[in-house]
Order: sequence, then C-alpha cells, then structure tokens
Amino acid sequence: MNEKVADHRLSLNQITTENWNLKEAAAGCAEQGIEWIGIWRHKVHEIGLKEAKQTIKNYNLKVSSLCRGGMFPAATDLIRQERIDDNKRAIEEAAELGAEVLVLVCGSSPDKDLQTSRRWVQEGIEAIVPFAEDHGVKLGIEPLHPMYAADRSVIVTLGEANEMQRAIASKQVGVIVDVFHVWWDPLLYKHIEDARGSILGFHVSDWKVPIHDLFKARSFMGEGIIDIPRIRKAVDHQGYDGPIEVEIMNQSIWDLPGEETLQKMKASYRSHV
Amino acid sequence: MNEKVADHRLSLNQITTENWNLKEAAAGCAEQGIEWIGIWRHKVHEIGLKEAKQTIKNYNLKVSSLCRGGMFPAATDLIRQERIDDNKRAIEEAAELGAEVLVLVCGSSPDKDLQTSRRWVQEGIEAIVPFAEDHGVKLGIEPLHPMYAADRSVIVTLGEANEMQRAIASKQVGVIVDVFHVWWDPLLYKHIEDARGSILGFHVSDWKVPIHDLFKARSFMGEGIIDIPRIRKAVDHQGYDGPIEVEIMNQSIWDLPGEETLQKMKASYRSHV
Repeated sequence: MNEKVADHRLSLNQITTENWNLKEAAAGCAEQGIEWIGIWRHKVHEIGLKEAKQTIKNYNLKVSSLCRGGMFPAATDLIRQERIDDNKRAIEEAAELGAEVLVLVCGSSPDKDLQTSRRWVQEGIEAIVPFAEDHGVKLGIEPLHPMYAADRSVIVTLGEANEMQRAIASKQVGVIVDVFHVWWDPLLYKHIEDARGSILGFHVSDWKVPIHDLFKARSFMGEGIIDIPRIRKAVDHQGYDGPIEVEIMNQSIWDLPGEETLQKMKASYRSHV
Repeated sequence: MNEKVADHRLSLNQITTENWNLKEAAAGCAEQGIEWIGIWRHKVHEIGLKEAKQTIKNYNLKVSSLCRGGMFPAATDLIRQERIDDNKRAIEEAAELGAEVLVLVCGSSPDKDLQTSRRWVQEGIEAIVPFAEDHGVKLGIEPLHPMYAADRSVIVTLGEANEMQRAIASKQVGVIVDVFHVWWDPLLYKHIEDARGSILGFHVSDWKVPIHDLFKARSFMGEGIIDIPRIRKAVDHQGYDGPIEVEIMNQSIWDLPGEETLQKMKASYRSHV
C-alpha cells in the first residue's frame, strides 16, 4: 500500500475527453506522458478496429480497459441473445486492442422485476465466459450507483458484484471499483476486503454537491466529497496495483480543450488520489 | 398480509400538495375521505402550532407523522447542539399534533468523513430519545436513497437504519420504509424482515425513468418501475398495519389543483399499492 499514488498508474478513460477522437486522445496521452488509456467502443467504431489498434501501437500506450460490455437484461430472448452476441464482439475488440479487461455495465430491467434482471445478468456473463477465456480477456463487473438501477445497472453495490463474481466462479471474471458509484456504501470497506484477488480495475472522479445531471454529474478529484485516497489505499491494500482510470462525464469538462483537460486531470490525480 | 391495500390506511403526506397550506390540505383530505395526514413543519409554522392543532381537530384527521427531525451532522459542536434543540422542538410539535412518529431525515456530512457523520447521527438520536419518551413521540429513522448521501442523509440503506435502531436499543426508535429510497437494494427483503417490530411508517411514490431532478423526481404510483405491492406486502408481513403515506415531490404535480392531485393519488394508491 503506497501512501502516494504512482504516476505510472494513471489512465485516461476516454469518456473524460469525449470531445476528442481516439487518435487525438492517444496523441494527448503520449504528449502528457500518460501510459494508459481506457477506450470506449464508440470511439473505436469511428475509425475502425484496425486503425484503433495501430493508433495505440503508434503511441506506445497500454489499454487499461475497453468500455463497455454488459446490458444483459432485455424484454425478449431474442434481444438478450443479440446482447450476448454484441458482448462477444466486444471481447474480440478488447483482445485485438490488448485491453486488460472488458468493463461490464450490466444493464437493467425492462420491467419491475429486479430479481429476474439480476438472474439475466448472471446468465449473460456465464454465457460469455468461455469466449472471454478463449480470447484471454477478463470481464469486470462494475457496480453502478443505485441511482442508475432503473436504466443502467441492477448491480448496485460492490457486495452484490462480489457475490455474483463468486457465484460465477471463473478466474476470468472480477470486479471494478469506481469511487463515484460506491463511496456512499456503509459496507464499502468490507466489500473491498471481500474483493481481494478479483479487483480488475479502479476508476476515479468526484461527487460535487449538488449534482444536477444524473449522467454527466462527475467532477475532477478533489472537487467533491468522496474520500478517494482512503478508498484507493483500501483497494491497493487488497493487492490491486494496476492502472487507475480517470472517468469523468461532465459537459463543462467536455467543452474544454483536450490538452487542458489532461493537465487538470493529472494535477487532480496527483493531489487527490 | 392483505392482498389489497385498505383505503383506511391512505395518508396524504403534505409535501404532495406543496401548493396547499395546512388548512387546504386538511379540508381536501376530509372532502376525499382520507383519514390520515403527514404534516410538514414549515406548513405548521406558517399558521402556528395552535391553529395547526385546531385544524387537524376540526377536520377529524389523524396525523401519521411529522416531517421532519434529524439533520444531526454539522461542522461544529455548537451547530450540532442547535440541531438537537431543534429536534426537541419538533418532538414537542409532534406531541401537540398527536403525530404517531417524528420522521428523521438524518443529515449528511459537512466534510468527507462519512463515518463521523454516522456517529453524529447516532449520538444525535440518543440525545433526544429521553425527550421523545417523555413526550410519547416515536422517532423514525428513514434511510434515504444513496443519491442523497452527500447532502441529505448518510443513512442510505434499511440495513443501516436497522443496525442503528438496534444500537440505540430504545423502543422509542424505529425505522421508516419509503419505497423510493429503498427499492433498488438487492438485500431489501432481508432488511424488511430484520425490521420486524420496529417499522414506524411506510411511504409510497414511484421512480419514473428517466428522472431528471434529484429532489423533485417522484411520480404517482404505477408510473414508474418500483414493485410497490411486493414491498408493501413484505412490510405488512412484518406486522406493520399503520398508515401509508403518499409522499411525492414533483413540480408538475405541485402545479395541479390540489383536488385533482388527491383524486389521482387515491386512484394510484388503490391500483398500485
């Protein structure tokens, strides 16, 4: 467990520079000495997988994750199968890009039955595990904040993600800890202990009071109320020493020049992670 | 456990008709045959406690709760003491109005330390328990949705409320179950079982996707994704047979004529609770 977070762990999650395409983001990282990038699929599809791969290689970057797979619950068998097929394509892309992990935003219920949706999530992950194994891609279950339970993820606590990880019982599957999603949980530090050995990623941003927009609600680290260093040290303490993605959806940050965003991100990371 | 919810349990939580003063709300309830009302302190203060009490008596209503006490965490000892004093005034008002329970919205942290805030909440409640006993007023710990953890309540799950209730270990203290705050929790039904014997109130509204405003986000029952009957039956099953408050903060409902709101509320209650 390090008191101070190491520069070499910093990763740009690409949504933080939503105004940039993948080439701009990769060039920006190289320029700023950022070794890692977390890539979003829509940015890959803009330029094609081959060119995306070449871009990452050209700038000598490591890919911390591909965002995102998941979205397993759906109203019909047919749509659920389509989602599983799409997850397989995401796994292929992650393998091709050399991503450490495919982040799973698990999805939510088309109706009122959370229990069924949770079962569909587990069945969906189980359905893609062999494919992920074959491609050497890890699958990271990311619990989202409960305010997204109705439309983005029925997996809402790290405890629930841990339980699902254990139920699936595959070394290919782990969990992602994102401080924005989990900071409020009275059982957080217990859940982090329980996640020992299966933490596949750590994401940071901050919760600035008041938040106005549910989706684009995040801030630079240090601007909000999350005790990020405490959570980071707890995660480190369980043996996680991989990349730390800065993942910030925020329109006013998207409106900044990308270079400025990266500079602020680095400063915020060094002081508040 | 009743399959169908009884009309006589319906209570108007006054925030649902924020456009009405207490006299209008009381008259509206009497007109519509609603036996219970949940009163907000700012509405009492508008007309004074004496007149508020007389109003309730005139319309022959029962008071399901007074909203709200709590807000225990604060940056200084002095402010925390002022909050405790204010809770005592709330207890006096609740006793005077014949309210079954004072609802505690526990408050949140002035800084980043959730643990300290949680301790302040417990100490705050313990400080007012003897006063509540003397006045025959129950105190209901209401867990709020985690999206309010930074600014309204560090008590964010029914499990956490149960634990605090047990730690305080006074028959004067119980918990409030509000479907809007707790529906997302994978452990909800376990927490409801654990709350047996200490449920002091049950509040309903709905979560309509997408929600845009964090505070005024609620809808009539049946318009959203919460499985309200399932939660209501689980709460009933633990022996709660008291009033059911409809508590909806929503600007477009506040803009309706109060009579129309009450009619819609009754219909929504009968069909979706």
